[in-house]
Amino acid sequence: MEKQLQNFIQENKQRFLNELFDFLRIPSVSANPENTQDMLNAAQFLQDKLKIAGCDIVEIIQTEGHPIVYAEKIIDVNLPTVLVYGHYDVQPAEPLELWKTPPFEPTVINDIIYARGADDDKGQMFTQVKALEFMTTTNNLPCNIKFLIEGEEEAGSSNIGTFVKQNKEKLKADVIIASDTSMIANDVPSINVGLRGLCYFQIELTGPDRDLHSGVYGGGVPNPANILCKMLNSLFDENNKVNIPGFYDDVYNLTEKEREALNSAPFSLEDYKDEISIKNIYGEKGYTTEERTTARPALDINGIWSGYTGEGAKTVIPSKAYAKISTRLVPFQNPQIIKDIIINHLKNIAPDSVHIDVEYLHGGDAYMSPTDGIEFQAASMAFEKTFNKKPIPTRSGGSIPIVALFEKELGVKTILMGWGLESDAIHSPNEHFGIFNFIKGIETIPYFFKYYTELKK
Amino acid sequence: MEKQLQNFIQENKQRFLNELFDFLRIPSVSANPENTQDMLNAAQFLQDKLKIAGCDIVEIIQTEGHPIVYAEKIIDVNLPTVLVYGHYDVQPAEPLELWKTPPFEPTVINDIIYARGADDDKGQMFTQVKALEFMTTTNNLPCNIKFLIEGEEEAGSSNIGTFVKQNKEKLKADVIIASDTSMIANDVPSINVGLRGLCYFQIELTGPDRDLHSGVYGGGVPNPANILCKMLNSLFDENNKVNIPGFYDDVYNLTEKEREALNSAPFSLEDYKDEISIKNIYGEKGYTTEERTTARPALDINGIWSGYTGEGAKTVIPSKAYAKISTRLVPFQNPQIIKDIIINHLKNIAPDSVHIDVEYLHGGDAYMSPTDGIEFQAASMAFEKTFNKKPIPTRSGGSIPIVALFEKELGVKTILMGWGLESDAIHSPNEHFGIFNFIKGIETIPYFFKYYTELKK
Repeated sequence: MEKQLQNFIQENKQRFLNELFDFLRIPSVSANPENTQDMLNAAQFLQDKLKIAGCDIVEIIQTEGHPIVYAEKIIDVNLPTVLVYGHYDVQPAEPLELWKTPPFEPTVINDIIYARGADDDKGQMFTQVKALEFMTTTNNLPCNIKFLIEGEEEAGSSNIGTFVKQNKEKLKADVIIASDTSMIANDVPSINVGLRGLCYFQIELTGPDRDLHSGVYGGGVPNPANILCKMLNSLFDENNKVNIPGFYDDVYNLTEKEREALNSAPFSLEDYKDEISIKNIYGEKGYTTEERTTARPALDINGIWSGYTGEGAKTVIPSKAYAKISTRLVPFQNPQIIKDIIINHLKNIAPDSVHIDVEYLHGGDAYMSPTDGIEFQAASMAFEKTFNKKPIPTRSGGSIPIVALFEKELGVKTILMGWGLESDAIHSPNEHFGIFNFIKGIETIPYFFKYYTELKK
Repeated sequence: MEKQLQNFIQENKQRFLNELFDFLRIPSVSANPENTQDMLNAAQFLQDKLKIAGCDIVEIIQTEGHPIVYAEKIIDVNLPTVLVYGHYDVQPAEPLELWKTPPFEPTVINDIIYARGADDDKGQMFTQVKALEFMTTTNNLPCNIKFLIEGEEEAGSSNIGTFVKQNKEKLKADVIIASDTSMIANDVPSINVGLRGLCYFQIELTGPDRDLHSGVYGGGVPNPANILCKMLNSLFDENNKVNIPGFYDDVYNLTEKEREALNSAPFSLEDYKDEISIKNIYGEKGYTTEERTTARPALDINGIWSGYTGEGAKTVIPSKAYAKISTRLVPFQNPQIIKDIIINHLKNIAPDSVHIDVEYLHGGDAYMSPTDGIEFQAASMAFEKTFNKKPIPTRSGGSIPIVALFEKELGVKTILMGWGLESDAIHSPNEHFGIFNFIKGIETIPYFFKYYTELKK
């Protein structure tokens, strides 16, 4: 297969890139109602490419939100089935003024593709489609394959959960594979074996029933902005640990061996700081940056607003103050328990002079993938074959809530084989993806299918 | 004079009100560039009325912003001169949807005039114009009078300071009178003898150079929103005192006798809480609400914003976090010293992982008026004459920076004789002013002129 694969890639590389560019030109921003038609166009584009790649069934399935694309090629019901998960929607491109090239006109500079979605997840997910095209065209597909590609990953995956629960038979598979994570470096392949969970809240504090003159009332009345800062600050102790009773109760504490493995991955603190232009890091005392961002829970203010935010000065005591806060969870923190702990705590610490409302926006479980199963072994062998290096098991600080849902509803583990890099600026202006990474993905996937099928026998 | 005054008011009351209504119909919003012509119209309206009231000279003086109206009637250079200060501009009417009547169509309900500017300061200032008309018409003007009416009080009084500094001879006077403050109640007259000063700042904290994915980076990098809350909260101690070294060094501490006088004014804590719908008060330990809001400095967040503030959830670590904060100062805190203290303190407490910028937006001195001078005595006697009650000396939590400037540049004290009430909703929707208060002002002013001139001899 090796020779066939190399020839196939060499012959079709420019066509693959051109197809990806067409895909990237569709502004499929799931959060923006103005892009509803673009969402459908992206789904149809994918439908077309999945047919060409050899799928027997390709469906665009309507949901209450954006459609799901489902496809399958069943070659023998007695063979294993691999389910590919991905998403065709992208983050909003704003702030547009920070883009150096147009976000929806892919531009190649030094073999790097710049565009919204170049990495997350159009570029990564498209490697799966093109790998299938290779396997069907050259008679190298060793097992059955299904695709489940959603259009709402960047907007909370509102409808795929219901779809999964209602279509367990249709989605039946032995393993799930997703290309939506990153490697350590192009010469340091890695497999993501841990994801953090999430609980996201919105807080609304109300003090006086209207904005007040800060001269007349200042000093005598509850200012909800002052009080919100006090409350949010109290959620951290002097070591930057989360200061909420019960929050750490179920946290899985890494063993010394696991900590060693996590910290042995190549990592430069200076490069890390330079890359985001910070003078110093900041975080929980007693843990390294890699531990803080992957194996430890975190609590962040994602947004805060209150009072006068225009030009110049307005001497007002705000009536209301708002914050969006979220916590990243680790195994075995349960989002439902953490949700209750945090809501109760916020209500407890609010002084009686203000009214507090806390809304739970969404959440998801953390995820751990075993490194001793055959899916990890197959993925590891595939990476070793094409990168000539054993991949390092790593954890990601982000969340892909659907992965925990797959395990819960379908009883199937997901193997996270991503080709992107942390520095690809996903969710930011100037998102990009290396042509090397795109091609390497297409090259590696068929080996995973081959080794997995062999090991499964 | 008493009989003449009563007859004059009775005969002209409806005309006075009609003139005030015409004045209130002009939307002289100084902050809104679209109202530039309305500002000029309001100045010309005033010019006309000051001529009718008997002034010999009435000038509309252009500034770099909105014009100043100056007027005078000099009857004898050997007699005392009273300078009347006021402003013809008003606050923006927004939010419009909360007004029960049109803000620029004065509407009388139960003898209360509802309109933007009804109290602050058109209604109050117009009492001075009509009182002069009485004094000149009935030959009761006992001294010289000058008017200085600005059009930028609600927008920072940017240009009147320069005008005062450059026109000290023209503005020469023995006392300044302003009707731009409030009384305790219609049956509890009071004279404002203290105003708080102000220092207003804008803070900008920068963490990472762009918004980051909170999953990938959460827990490992400085989140400027988290840090801003921590910094702002640290500005208060556990007793809600301002926790900035040096901040209280120059605060004038009230004597026991002054505290008694301040707290003896009629005040219902239950009414206070009900009026702004708060469940409890909040403030510096060891002081009453009246002390906290007038005689003690206060520190408030007037605005705060960072990160994602739209609908739903966005898992972002903000790059920047902003706050507008201001402190109300009391005698003898110096805004220039407090400004330096606060800016240095904020820079000191910012962790090295963020970059901080602090901008000083504006400020002004606190003001104290002596209660043993003849201007206070004359004002007190005038109130007693028309309200049949000795007025209570009170303090206001707000600032009228021009009053401190008059003292500094002209060496003249200002007596604050206001007829409004705290509940008149100035700066808010449904601003209003009682017809009783309007007429009582016109009635009381001539007595001030009479007693002041007599005492001055």
